[in-house]
Order: sequence, then structure tokens, then C-alpha cells
Amino acid sequence: MSHNTFGHLFRVTTFGESHGVALGCVVDGCPPGLALEAEDIQAELDRRKPGQSRFTTQRREPDQVKILSGVFSDDRTGGRQLTTGTPIALMIENTDQRSKDYSEIRDSYRPGHADFTYDAKYGIRDYRGGGRSSARETAARVAAGAVARKVIPGITIRAALVQMGPHAIDRANWDWEQVGQNPFFCPDAKAAALYETYLDAIRKDGSSVGAVIEVVAEGVPPGLGAPIYGKLDADLAAAMMSINAVKGVEIGDGFAAAALRGEDNADEMRAGNDGRPRFLANHAGGILGGISSGEPVVVRFAVKPTSSILTPRQSVNRDGAEIDLITKGRHDPCVGIRAVPVAEAMMACVLADHTLRHRGQNGERP
Amino acid sequence: MSHNTFGHLFRVTTFGESHGVALGCVVDGCPPGLALEAEDIQAELDRRKPGQSRFTTQRREPDQVKILSGVFSDDRTGGRQLTTGTPIALMIENTDQRSKDYSEIRDSYRPGHADFTYDAKYGIRDYRGGGRSSARETAARVAAGAVARKVIPGITIRAALVQMGPHAIDRANWDWEQVGQNPFFCPDAKAAALYETYLDAIRKDGSSVGAVIEVVAEGVPPGLGAPIYGKLDADLAAAMMSINAVKGVEIGDGFAAAALRGEDNADEMRAGNDGRPRFLANHAGGILGGISSGEPVVVRFAVKPTSSILTPRQSVNRDGAEIDLITKGRHDPCVGIRAVPVAEAMMACVLADHTLRHRGQNGERP
Amino acid sequence: MSHNTFGHLFRVTTFGESHGVALGCVVDGCPPGLALEAEDIQAELDRRKPGQSRFTTQRREPDQVKILSGVFSDDRTGGRQLTTGTPIALMIENTDQRSKDYSEIRDSYRPGHADFTYDAKYGIRDYRGGGRSSARETAARVAAGAVARKVIPGITIRAALVQMGPHAIDRANWDWEQVGQNPFFCPDAKAAALYETYLDAIRKDGSSVGAVIEVVAEGVPPGLGAPIYGKLDADLAAAMMSINAVKGVEIGDGFAAAALRGEDNADEMRAGNDGRPRFLANHAGGILGGISSGEPVVVRFAVKPTSSILTPRQSVNRDGAEIDLITKGRHDPCVGIRAVPVAEAMMACVLADHTLRHRGQNGERP
Amino acid sequence: MSHNTFGHLFRVTTFGESHGVALGCVVDGCPPGLALEAEDIQAELDRRKPGQSRFTTQRREPDQVKILSGVFSDDRTGGRQLTTGTPIALMIENTDQRSKDYSEIRDSYRPGHADFTYDAKYGIRDYRGGGRSSARETAARVAAGAVARKVIPGITIRAALVQMGPHAIDRANWDWEQVGQNPFFCPDAKAAALYETYLDAIRKDGSSVGAVIEVVAEGVPPGLGAPIYGKLDADLAAAMMSINAVKGVEIGDGFAAAALRGEDNADEMRAGNDGRPRFLANHAGGILGGISSGEPVVVRFAVKPTSSILTPRQSVNRDGAEIDLITKGRHDPCVGIRAVPVAEAMMACVLADHTLRHRGQNGERP
Repeated sequence: MSHNTFGHLFRVTTFGESHGVALGCVVDGCPPGLALEAEDIQAELDRRKPGQSRFTTQRREPDQVKILSGVFSDDRTGGRQLTTGTPIALMIENTDQRSKDYSEIRDSYRPGHADFTYDAKYGIRDYRGGGRSSARETAARVAAGAVARKVIPGITIRAALVQMGPHAIDRANWDWEQVGQNPFFCPDAKAAALYETYLDAIRKDGSSVGAVIEVVAEGVPPGLGAPIYGKLDADLAAAMMSINAVKGVEIGDGFAAAALRGEDNADEMRAGNDGRPRFLANHAGGILGGISSGEPVVVRFAVKPTSSILTPRQSVNRDGAEIDLITKGRHDPCVGIRAVPVAEAMMACVLADHTLRHRGQNGERP
Repeated sequence: MSHNTFGHLFRVTTFGESHGVALGCVVDGCPPGLALEAEDIQAELDRRKPGQSRFTTQRREPDQVKILSGVFSDDRTGGRQLTTGTPIALMIENTDQRSKDYSEIRDSYRPGHADFTYDAKYGIRDYRGGGRSSARETAARVAAGAVARKVIPGITIRAALVQMGPHAIDRANWDWEQVGQNPFFCPDAKAAALYETYLDAIRKDGSSVGAVIEVVAEGVPPGLGAPIYGKLDADLAAAMMSINAVKGVEIGDGFAAAALRGEDNADEMRAGNDGRPRFLANHAGGILGGISSGEPVVVRFAVKPTSSILTPRQSVNRDGAEIDLITKGRHDPCVGIRAVPVAEAMMACVLADHTLRHRGQNGERP
Repeated sequence: MSHNTFGHLFRVTTFGESHGVALGCVVDGCPPGLALEAEDIQAELDRRKPGQSRFTTQRREPDQVKILSGVFSDDRTGGRQLTTGTPIALMIENTDQRSKDYSEIRDSYRPGHADFTYDAKYGIRDYRGGGRSSARETAARVAAGAVARKVIPGITIRAALVQMGPHAIDRANWDWEQVGQNPFFCPDAKAAALYETYLDAIRKDGSSVGAVIEVVAEGVPPGLGAPIYGKLDADLAAAMMSINAVKGVEIGDGFAAAALRGEDNADEMRAGNDGRPRFLANHAGGILGGISSGEPVVVRFAVKPTSSILTPRQSVNRDGAEIDLITKGRHDPCVGIRAVPVAEAMMACVLADHTLRHRGQNGERP
Repeated sequence: MSHNTFGHLFRVTTFGESHGVALGCVVDGCPPGLALEAEDIQAELDRRKPGQSRFTTQRREPDQVKILSGVFSDDRTGGRQLTTGTPIALMIENTDQRSKDYSEIRDSYRPGHADFTYDAKYGIRDYRGGGRSSARETAARVAAGAVARKVIPGITIRAALVQMGPHAIDRANWDWEQVGQNPFFCPDAKAAALYETYLDAIRKDGSSVGAVIEVVAEGVPPGLGAPIYGKLDADLAAAMMSINAVKGVEIGDGFAAAALRGEDNADEMRAGNDGRPRFLANHAGGILGGISSGEPVVVRFAVKPTSSILTPRQSVNRDGAEIDLITKGRHDPCVGIRAVPVAEAMMACVLADHTLRHRGQNGERP
């Protein structure tokens, strides 16, 4: 991962600011011959789109994606639009930028935001809506992820919100069907009901709250991952940590593994039907030695509470003067919610990349 | 990060297997003119060296480093050996490889180890001592880290073990001086005393236990980090996750941030003496928007229990037959202990790399 | 250089096909605070634009560039638009695509073109106007080059056509002023007059002809270049060879150096005024050991004749049947002409990249 | 290509100075399961080894390679040593360094050498035998090339010297068998006889002379190459230009193509037996649009005369004082000779890399 590009053979370069002309990405290295329509990408973008419930920002962006390059159709493709192996550029024009008065955030450093650090690094900053540091950039990732999914049709990637504030779900209630049926991408219907009340109160307070997201990839063949410094878990950790507001990433049992003894942590094996081991547990989260084991790849990450809140906080401005600050504007009370489709996209990109890398160096996948 | 290389301008490529001829690394991109003696590197290696207490593997390796290239001294350097800007190759020859009977691990897949996944990926595996997947590779990282520290002389990097099994230290007792005075790199003298008894029991049981390590970098100037996909925290997450047996990484408050409300998580600011903000808290762990804030960079990571234990576990062998397995040999009952100097090395490498990157694209550091 | 991205700290990713929706690039790693208007880029694009004389393709493309991201202006910038250090996306929409009948090139492999090889590699091909393999892609390079020039304001980069077909210019007549005054970018007025007659005849024959271009960068400080595999000349060779139809690249005396004896090839030195050597000759073309010497960097490259000609050539079609083929459509009789501004752009990008890399690893430039 | 690493999936990182402890490389990304013995590598190194005739430097280096990692053998491999997919570190210890008086080159800038530019870049320089800028580094490339050849067993790579000073060979006399039978790697026996007399005279004069080398790869399948910025010819151009003293690179007809008309340059096609086109000519040198066509890949490059000569040349020293300088020591009168096996190695590495990249992104090779 480097600057605004990630991936090695399946490479994604994103661009764009929150209130600029457009944002988007170039997906380079996508194999040729895959069916890809704008609608495939739009469907994923719509899941992430703001303004779909009262629990996400009220900014209204259609987030309409345009494919600028890298696909082709003619009579020989039977009318289907196929990837050609050349770079796929995707663009989403910004429409609802509200060219309002930005003087407040122009001069002030909002606590928890990247205002001060961008100024410290670059000496200049597009402060409108957070500029490049806005979570709006993740729309480009979701678009890229939709392409990545085409590369790995045998792999199912799903994510869910498993904790909001201090309230974890009851894993016994886990039902993937539920994820699409509440505004929180929550797999536990009971927890979702609780979150509704809880987040309404947070929202009315002008406050915000953190969350934990879990991403699961099923159908990952054993053998993906490039030890030592392109380990599958290392790449996933970087991918998830690069999402806005993420402060922690764990694989399988994660931090809980530290408290275990070796006997309890070992994923025992029995003979499987297909000639490969059947694991009796998955503490490892599907990755051993940086390489996938064939078990579901399980990643969790923590999102901090949205930094924009209505309670006044102490801060300073660009001139070093001390100020008290509240952050007006349209914001997500729990930015973790919209991180759910973003997490799926990052998982898809990493797995697509490692699939191509494995095939390149080790021949076909097992 | 890609395959066996990490870093962008300060680049480290490691090589070597646990029981091969030698292991080491090539450090590419180190600035010229830095004083570097083998002793500087050796001092760091000695901290990681096995066999220093009864709590780490009894393998006896002197881990003597040789500098093969990239340094120079003559009368004009006043006898000091200086880096020249060319690649610095470092080699550590293996001596205590015990060419014993490996038939057991040759054919069996040890639970929790990378035996099956390396076979699945490569179809062949140097099983002696774990081969490339052995934590012995981290000696090369520690050597590279010693070079990295030369690049960032104003930054102090220290790590400590803050949890062993279920037993966290009492942070009120934190004393960096203690870290060098017990075999656990533990900053809490009282906890260290407890660990001694606790780990002795684990060791005698032939069992093992996990740990949590915390790494802190002080004196990091604001402005380091390359958004969006080379964020400082994303690179640190990948760096730590690439260490053997690590299952989780967090920055600042990490997973605890998920349970906070926005008011509690915001690091408020007041005017500082040096013209930059003084932060009243550091929930963010020194990183905002992927860029360092000037506050201490704080990273924690979880290490799973050593997978090699004496309790029989169910497994399969290469031929798919079911077996019961115990893992004999010399092992660390808590592999997290020796991860402490490794974590410092990875932090040093990442910060050296980002220092050079920032200087390249944004001019001098603030 | 890798896939559709080149550069290391100053990185350019291009996208787009000849007859697709749009083409463009993302310039990543551009330092912040540089004044950049669309007009700056447009001026360079206009030099490369087709249809400006009867000697280039009659395709009419306004080649209007849009800056989608990475720049910012407000009252604090005094109305000037500045780069922000974030990725600069540039887009040029295709307008004159002539959705005509492509059935001929759809099924046939035009000799000298990339039709067969793209099919062999990808199994699918956007054949309209050559798709991704069209020289139209170089518009994106020229746009990126305009940004690169901002990074290296002290360096003057100029290119010229120095040979058309078998007719080399007379170097004694070299006058940079002439380059802008004839449709060939030719620095020798007399040769330009000859080329007019010569190329008219070629054009009327439905034939085409090759060319040699020379690019010169003056004001390059000594010290740029990253030995061993990022040598300045190696990067320039790759950059120029990546331009469509280029078949050879040389630095300084180039191939002529093979015929020299050591005494004649050595660039002798005398004391310079500024404390650095003054070179008495520049056979080396400004690069020694892969590092700039402070002398002008001189690169020449050969462009093959345009492959699209009206004389029938033997070929085969996709089905393997033998055919005779002429290539109708709008084409440049000497594609080398429009390679002149492209060459300047590539030189600018490589020098900008190496300037940042040098600054990163070696501190400020000498 | 970046710093001291080249390649993307098949990656080579070299290290070492002319008179340092050792030089070598790490080959990363080599597929597993390939038979590789030190003898395979040694055989290639012996072809490049100095001191084999009076026409190359009299330095006596056994250039004995050691494989430090990345290979494995046991009873299951039938005693054969196989690659394991992990990094292959290769080391050649320096033995004949002659720790003589270097005071002359320590303080002086030898014309044509990298002395001044390394000082300008790094401010410090290992001047012993040229340090990192010595052609001794190419031993590491030859070693890596021997590994690369294992990756592409169906491809035959051969190089030859085709011009020495002003004397080109007669291509009608081309006989690959001759290449191993004269000290010049010359395929024309008659030219070789001439070179013997010619180079003897050059040598006795204390002078030197340039050369042109041609490298040919046969059996390259169509489809290798990664447009736009990882084109096969662009990568080859960088690879060859990175060899010491190279000043020009061309593919196929190269610079001669500039003088051709389109009709003469087009490589016509007829139906082939294997379903792919049979080309009637190969002006393109086996590459169209940056992708291999299945025809032999033909690359030529020019090597300047060795800069170390016994005729005094004007120069300056580190302090800026003007001096006259001759370069004593052991040198090659025609450094192009030993570039022949180096060129083969670079071709092998580039083709191995592109073979893996193609397989990764486009499935199996045609």
C-alpha cells in the first residue's frame, strides 16, 4: 500500500475530495473477460449511500457511478459488457456540496479530525466537508470492491455491525438475513431494535458513538497470502485500518487470543472429505502463517465515534488561539454503520489481489 | 508491503529459514553519512536473542551479525564507519540447527502452525524448525530496525509487554526502567513477579500463553503518514500484523474507542508553547487521518499462545490420515516476550520510511 | 514502472481508450502548494493536439482537460489554485469518436499494430481506433507532464524532431526558436522546409515514415538518479520506450559511443565557478553511473513509421484466414511528430520523481 | 524498477561493492518446486568471471556463489534441491580486493566514471574499485539470471557481441556455436579473429573501446508484457540501460526503423500451423504494443568504451583543483565483452517476471 494506491496485481488508485468536482478510482490489473455493468457497481454504492435513514448523514448524494474505460461490448460479446484487461476508471460526480460558509472549519482544528495534521503535513487543506480526509472517499473503494468481487466469484464476502457503543450483539442470534433488514447492518434483530432507541438518543444529544464491524469471507481457498510482508492478515490489517476512523483490527480471536492457553487456541484438524483437513475450530480466523487455511477469513475492526459532535470542545485555531468549538453540519451519529459495505469492498480487493498473486507465482489455486 | 520486502523509500528485504545456512536482510534506501557499526546492530539483536532466560527457547544462537555492504570508513571519516546510501546487507549465520530427526513435523500438520498452509500454497516446505515461517526471521527485522533508528535520531521508541495470558499489568505502576530488569520486558515490577510464577507453571505444564505488547514512539513530529493507503496507522497495522503469531493490532484507545461517545474520545487542544497545539489527551494514539499529530504514537498488538505444546492435539498428516500430535523441541512458552524488541524494530522501520517519504514530498519535517 | 502506473514518489496512473468515454490520469504524490490551473495543462495539450496541420491525423478532438481533484483555492490562496498534496485526477472526454463501421479492424490483425498481441494476451480487445494501444493515451501523459513541470521549476525541458525518414537535420542549424514555427517541431528551418515536401509526398502515397526525437533537460542539478535499478537513464529509457511506436532510446552519444575509444569518450573536467566541475564535453548526456552530472540530460529515441498505410499488406484475421489489408481512417503520416511534446512530458515526470526521491533520501538537492 | 530492486513478481534485490566483504542478491517470488543447485548458478557466473583471457580485467575472483536460503532437499525430493517459494539469497564473497593505495581515486574524479556524481548525490563514496558503481555488481545479476532461467524452461536466451569499436560483424556469418569459442562472445568467427588483433592494439595503447551486444530470446509465447508502463520493451530497455556503461538500447530494427517507410517496416503475416499467425519478418523484434508476438525478442544495446585508460585526461579533484589523471589498475579494454552474459541474465529476469505477471492476471500462457 502506498499513497493513494493499494494492491499489487489488482491495484486500486482513488482520488477526490468531499466537495470537489468528482471522486473515483482507477482499477488496474483486473483480468479481462469479466462481465461488468455500471449497475453491478451501483448496487454496492447504493448500500453505502448516505441519507438512507435518519441514522446516517442527511447529505443527499445520488452517488451515480460512470465507467470511463476498461470495458467493451459488441456483437461478439453478445451485448454483455466485458472487462478488457485495461484500467477501469470509475467516476462519481459530487452534486450536493452545499457551497456554504466554511469559515469555521477553515480556521479551526476540530478535535478528533485530521484538520491539524493535514495542515501540519501539507500546509494547505481543502477543508470543505473534510476534503480528502472525508469518509466520502470510501465511495471509490466500494466501487472498486464491486469490480473485485467479479474476480473471485467463488468467494462470499459479508460484513455486519456487531457492536454499537458498549452494546455487543448476542452472537447466538446471528442471522445474515437480518443484515439487510435494519438500518445498522446488524445480524441480531434484537440488538438492532435496541440500537434504534440507543442511537436516536445519541443523535438527539448531538453526540456520537463507536462501533465494531465483522467481515467474513467464505469459500476462500487455502494458499492465499504472500509471506512475510504481504501476509494475507497483514494486508487485511492495513486495508481495514486505512478506513476512516478505524482504530483497531483483529483476525479470528484477535485480542482474546492473548488470554488463551495453547491447548485452547489450537485449531485441531480431522480428515476432510476433499482431501484437505477439516478444522474443528477457527480461532485463527482462516489464516495461519499469513496464508489462508480454507476456513472462513474473519476480520473485526473498531471504529471510533464520529468526531463531529454538538457538545463544545476545547481547541485552537490556525493562528494558535484557543477556542471552543462545536461541529455543525450533516454527520453520521455512528460512522461505523456505513463502514460495513466499505469493509466488504476492502476484503474483496485484498482477496482479488492475492488470488492473482497466487496464480502468478504458484500456478492455479488449490 | 509486498512479499519479502517492506517499506517504500526505506526498504527492507529479509531472507532465510530457521535451520538454513543463514538469514538476514538488505536495507535499501538508508540515507548516507550515518554512523553504523556492527555493534549497534548487535546490541539490538542481543535483546531478542533466544536462550537468555528459562522463559524463552533454549536454542543457543549467538546471532552474530555481519555487515556485508553499504558502509565505509577511511581516514576522512575519522575512522567511523558510515552508511554510503547503497544497500546495507546484513547476515546472521545459523549455528545451532540440531540436524536431528524431523520426520515427525515433516509429515504432520501441527495445529496452529503454518505447516498445512505452506504446503497448500507451495507444495513443498522446509519443515526444519518451521523454515521460513519460524519467528527466527524476526532477527533480520531487529537488525534492520537498528539501522532505522539511525535515520530518526530524535525519536525514542520503546516497547513493553503489558499483558500475559489473562493478566494485564497495572498501568499505574508503569516504569520504563523496569523493562530491562525482568525477563518479560514488563514495565510493572509487580506484574513481572506474578508472571514469573505464572509462566513457570505454564512452562512446566508444557503449555503456552498469549500476550499483549505496547510500543510507544515519542518525539514523532507531526506530518508523517501518507493518506489514503499509506496512512501511518495502516502501515503500522501491517507491520505489526506481519510479526509471527500476532492476531490483533490497535492504535491509541483501539477497540475500547468503539464503546466511547464522541465527547469522551475527542482529544481536546490548547495552545502549545511551540506554536503547535498541545493535546489534552491522546485517545487517538498520536495519529489523526493517518498522519502523526506530534503526540506519542501508541500501538498495541495481541500475540496468540505459542502453538507448540506438549498436550496431544488432534490433527492430520500430509496423507490425510488422522493423528494425535504433541510438539516436542525447544520453544518459547510465551512467544510474545521476544516480540517486544521486534515491535520496536518494526516501529523504527515504519517511522524511518515515513520520515523519508515526508521529506521527499513535503520538504523538511515541521 | 508497472502496469498503468509509473513513477515512485511522483506517480502517474493513466486510463482510457481511443474511442471510449474519456481518458485521463491520476497524478499522485505531487507536492502541495504549487500553483496549477487547467490552462497550464491545456497549453501543453494543445501542442500535442491532433488536426493542427495536414501532417497529423485529421481527427478533431478539443482535448479539453478537467481537473477533478487535488487542487484548492480560497481567499487565503489569493485566488490562485494550488495543489494540496492529494491525488490530482485529470480527465479528457472523447468527443470525435466517429461511431463508424469497425468491422474491418474488428476481425483483422493489422501488421505492425498491437491487434494480434492484445488478442493473444487478453482474448478481447477494444478495436475502435486501437483502443488502449492507441497513441491517444499519450494525451494523459502530456497532462501529467504539465503538472510535473511545476515540481521542477528550475529545469528547462525541450524536445525536437531531429530526423524524419532518412533525413537528419543539420545540427549546425539548431535553433530552439524554430521548433514552434513549423509543424514538425524541427529546430532546423532548412530541414523543416525539406520535410514539408517530403512528408507531403509520403502522405499522398498513403505511406508513412519514422523519425528520431531528441529531448534535452537543462538545469538538472547533479545527484538525481537511484542506482542500481532506478538509475536516471534506466528510468528515462523505460519512459521513452513506453511511448507508442518507439523502438530505440539512447543517452548522450548513445550507439555512436560504441565506436569511440576511451580517450574520445571521456568528458574531461575543469574547475567550475560554482565549486563543481565544469565538463568540457557531454558525451555522457548528463548522466554518469545512473546519476545526473549537472550537464544537460540528452535523450534521443527512434519512432517507427506509422503502421496504418494505404498499401495493401498480407495478414490474417482472427479466424486464421489469410487476407490482404489496407488501413483506412485518419492517421499521422509521421507519428513521430506528435511524440515531441509527449517526450517532454515523460522527461518532466521522470525528473520530478527523481527530484522527490533524492530529496527524500539525500536531503535537499545540491 | 526502484533503487536496488527490479521486477514485480519475480523480484531481484542486489547488494555489494567491488571491494567490500561480499556481494549478492535476494531473488524473491521464484515459484516453488524448481530444481536449483549452486552449480547451475556457478556455470553462468563462470562465463562472466574476470581474468579468463587477456582481454578482460586481470583481477582474479573465483566468484564462488553460496545459496543462503530458499531451497530445500530431503528424501522426498529424491535428493534434488528444490526452490521453496521463499526468498533465495545468493552470496559471492570478495577475495582478491588488493587493499592497495587508493589515495588517487579517493580524491580525484575520473572522467567518464561515477566518482563525481556519487559524491554529488551521497557526499560519501566507497571509491575502492569503484564501490557500488563497479561492474562487479553484475555478478549478482548473472546469479539471479540463472534462477530466472529455471522459471522459463521453454525459452532460449542467447547473447552475442555484434560490434567492437567501429567494427560490426557480418551478420551473414552468424553462428551461435562460435559464441563460446572465442573470448569475445562473437558469433562471427572472422570478426572474432579481427577483434583479437584490434583489441590487442587497444590494450597495449592503454586505451579502450566500446561495443554493441545483441540478445535474442526464442520460444517466447505471445502475450507477455504489461501495457502501458510495464511494456515488455520498456522493461527490457530499463533492464539493459541499467547495466554499467550502456548508453543505448533498441528493439528489433531499432534506430534503423526511423529511416523506413511503413510498407517496409510492417511485419506481414500468413496463417501459421499452430493457429497463430506466422510472421514473414521481425522488424518489430518480437514486440508489438509492448506485448510479445511469439517471434524472437531481439534487443541490442551499446556499451561505451571503458573509462579507465592510461592516456592522461584533464579533471578536477574533490577540492576543486585541476589535475591530470590516468587510471591505473586492472581493467577491461572492452567492458562490453563481459556484458554479454549479463544481458542474458537481464533478459531472463524480465521474461520470468512477465511470465508470472501474465499468468497472474490472464491465466495460463497461450
